[in-house]
Amino acid sequence: MTATEAEKLINDTTAAVKPLDGKALQAAAERMDALLKPPGSLGRLEELGIKLAGIQGTEHPVTDSKLSLIYAGDHGVTAEGVSASPPFVSAVMIKAFCAGKAGINVLAGKAGAVIKVIDVGVATPYEEPEGLIVRRIRKGTGNIRVEAAMSRDEAILAMAAGIETARDAIDETGAKIIGIGEMGIGNTTSAAALTAVFTGRDSATVTGGGTGIGDASQKKKIRVIKDAIELHQPDTADPISVMAKLGGLEIAAMCGAMLAVAADGALVLIDGFISGAAALTAFAMAPGIRERMVLSHLSAEPGHRAMAAKLELKPVLDLGFRLGEGTGAAAVMPLVEAGAALLSEMGTLAEELIILQDPS
Amino acid sequence: MTATEAEKLINDTTAAVKPLDGKALQAAAERMDALLKPPGSLGRLEELGIKLAGIQGTEHPVTDSKLSLIYAGDHGVTAEGVSASPPFVSAVMIKAFCAGKAGINVLAGKAGAVIKVIDVGVATPYEEPEGLIVRRIRKGTGNIRVEAAMSRDEAILAMAAGIETARDAIDETGAKIIGIGEMGIGNTTSAAALTAVFTGRDSATVTGGGTGIGDASQKKKIRVIKDAIELHQPDTADPISVMAKLGGLEIAAMCGAMLAVAADGALVLIDGFISGAAALTAFAMAPGIRERMVLSHLSAEPGHRAMAAKLELKPVLDLGFRLGEGTGAAAVMPLVEAGAALLSEMGTLAEELIILQDPS
Repeated sequence: MTATEAEKLINDTTAAVKPLDGKALQAAAERMDALLKPPGSLGRLEELGIKLAGIQGTEHPVTDSKLSLIYAGDHGVTAEGVSASPPFVSAVMIKAFCAGKAGINVLAGKAGAVIKVIDVGVATPYEEPEGLIVRRIRKGTGNIRVEAAMSRDEAILAMAAGIETARDAIDETGAKIIGIGEMGIGNTTSAAALTAVFTGRDSATVTGGGTGIGDASQKKKIRVIKDAIELHQPDTADPISVMAKLGGLEIAAMCGAMLAVAADGALVLIDGFISGAAALTAFAMAPGIRERMVLSHLSAEPGHRAMAAKLELKPVLDLGFRLGEGTGAAAVMPLVEAGAALLSEMGTLAEELIILQDPS
Repeated sequence: MTATEAEKLINDTTAAVKPLDGKALQAAAERMDALLKPPGSLGRLEELGIKLAGIQGTEHPVTDSKLSLIYAGDHGVTAEGVSASPPFVSAVMIKAFCAGKAGINVLAGKAGAVIKVIDVGVATPYEEPEGLIVRRIRKGTGNIRVEAAMSRDEAILAMAAGIETARDAIDETGAKIIGIGEMGIGNTTSAAALTAVFTGRDSATVTGGGTGIGDASQKKKIRVIKDAIELHQPDTADPISVMAKLGGLEIAAMCGAMLAVAADGALVLIDGFISGAAALTAFAMAPGIRERMVLSHLSAEPGHRAMAAKLELKPVLDLGFRLGEGTGAAAVMPLVEAGAALLSEMGTLAEELIILQDPS
């Protein structure tokens, strides 16, 4: 695919993100209130069911097929010492995903979701395990403190790879509920930079410890992000260029995948902090997408709250997750399923009273 | 069963609530840290898995069998106008539970839990549906504003019914994860009264709107609770008498069920506000029980926070539920299962590094 073709695919996909089906939303909301329970008494579960109805255009949304997409890519900014893990960990984890041994395998397994792992930019060479989808745009990004993460064309190609791989997985599984997760060494730094830019907040307030660095490293990380933003002068009116300058290959692919999932009428489950940075970018490209998103959990990363506020999405879970991989998205899947099932499986008070007549 | 036999059963069960297995706890905590993820990065899911290990006495706890127990009983205090629903609703809901049409049926169904419905004190006569377990101690409680909810013997018999029915269900299913829910018209009033007494807080701060009364009724509810506490002068050193004076037949049975579940080495999943009142009573009888409990969610009822503080348990979910029936407990089951599965299904970093050698 050429960059021109990729850009057209992105534009077409962005344009295909439509508003929710208002009629189905209303029918579902009315049905929810008529069910055999006090209106609103199942709180956010009811919201999830109603949102799914609006997305699927029916008051009886289905949830039987689910996907966990994991995009992998590494970050050149690790040269600045911002990460606790050496870059070869991405390869170790990809092998673990494909062997069924990682956290996401447990959570997606319990949720009944199919996992797809896509390498769009792992830095270290490794033996590719069976089942891995390889769409490597380049081997890791540049160090954003001194150069762009990638060229604009590379960002476009990574987004298009996200769109295509998400579509392939949807075609294969028919999934209607799709978690978007990642693996990438150094990616909380890029995610924090994107968050600072898209939410207009100071780097210091959106930067956390990632998967486990100390206080001194965290200060360095904040400094690196400030420097990178100052160097690149990102312009939020051009979200693709922001992604190219400060983002990551896997974050660009996740952004593309989210656009594809939304355009194709499935629910986008945002995972943690990195997934949220992809969501902020997708939101800048297609503001209507937020109605098709669920923020699965509040990450332990401080910038996640800023994301949630910008997207006007309230996290469903708050369990102190900071792993990524799509684990938070998979953890919320059973609740989304249950919310939808209320609409199809519960009786209504009217039905029960007719059937039961006077129960005394 | 005589009241004397019932009291002996309660005492034996209370005495059988043992401390957690420290060795299994430690082994599970160490394994959790060795898994293929940064230590602690799956937050509360890790805690749930470790707790289950301590309860089951093995670092590989099992979760394949789950139960939702629903105890039903009505409250004479509805004569004071504290409830939005007429008492015959209990019968309607019991029929719905047994027909698979209620909220708990959806949530327990998604979680793979078996439901047992036990009538220990429904006020209105009704045709008993198939599958219902009937252990009715009396038809509804007295109006706590003017009389004891029940006699001490009735409270003891209701607790014993809870113990026996929970044991029967455990024997039948082998369940290791057990949600304790309820159905009862007027029971948020009794639950708030028990909460005020066991937490030492003012009635006004622990009394909410139940399943949907207005502001004026809520004020009345607070007044009723104050009057009842003043009339009965409950003594927390004698938890059974507190239950008899202010509680409910279903709340007493839930308390007994919790003691039995804990004594038999399964996990007690506290549901919402009423279930929490039963938990507070069980905690007063056997303080060690809190280690064997998970507070599944933060109910929309204001008194739930006071309960959580007293039990030193942090709710796992916060989804605005205020339905009862065990729905919150069932909603958290997939997370408990996933937490346990981490211990048995994930690889460790050491294993992966040996298998993969140098992945580059």
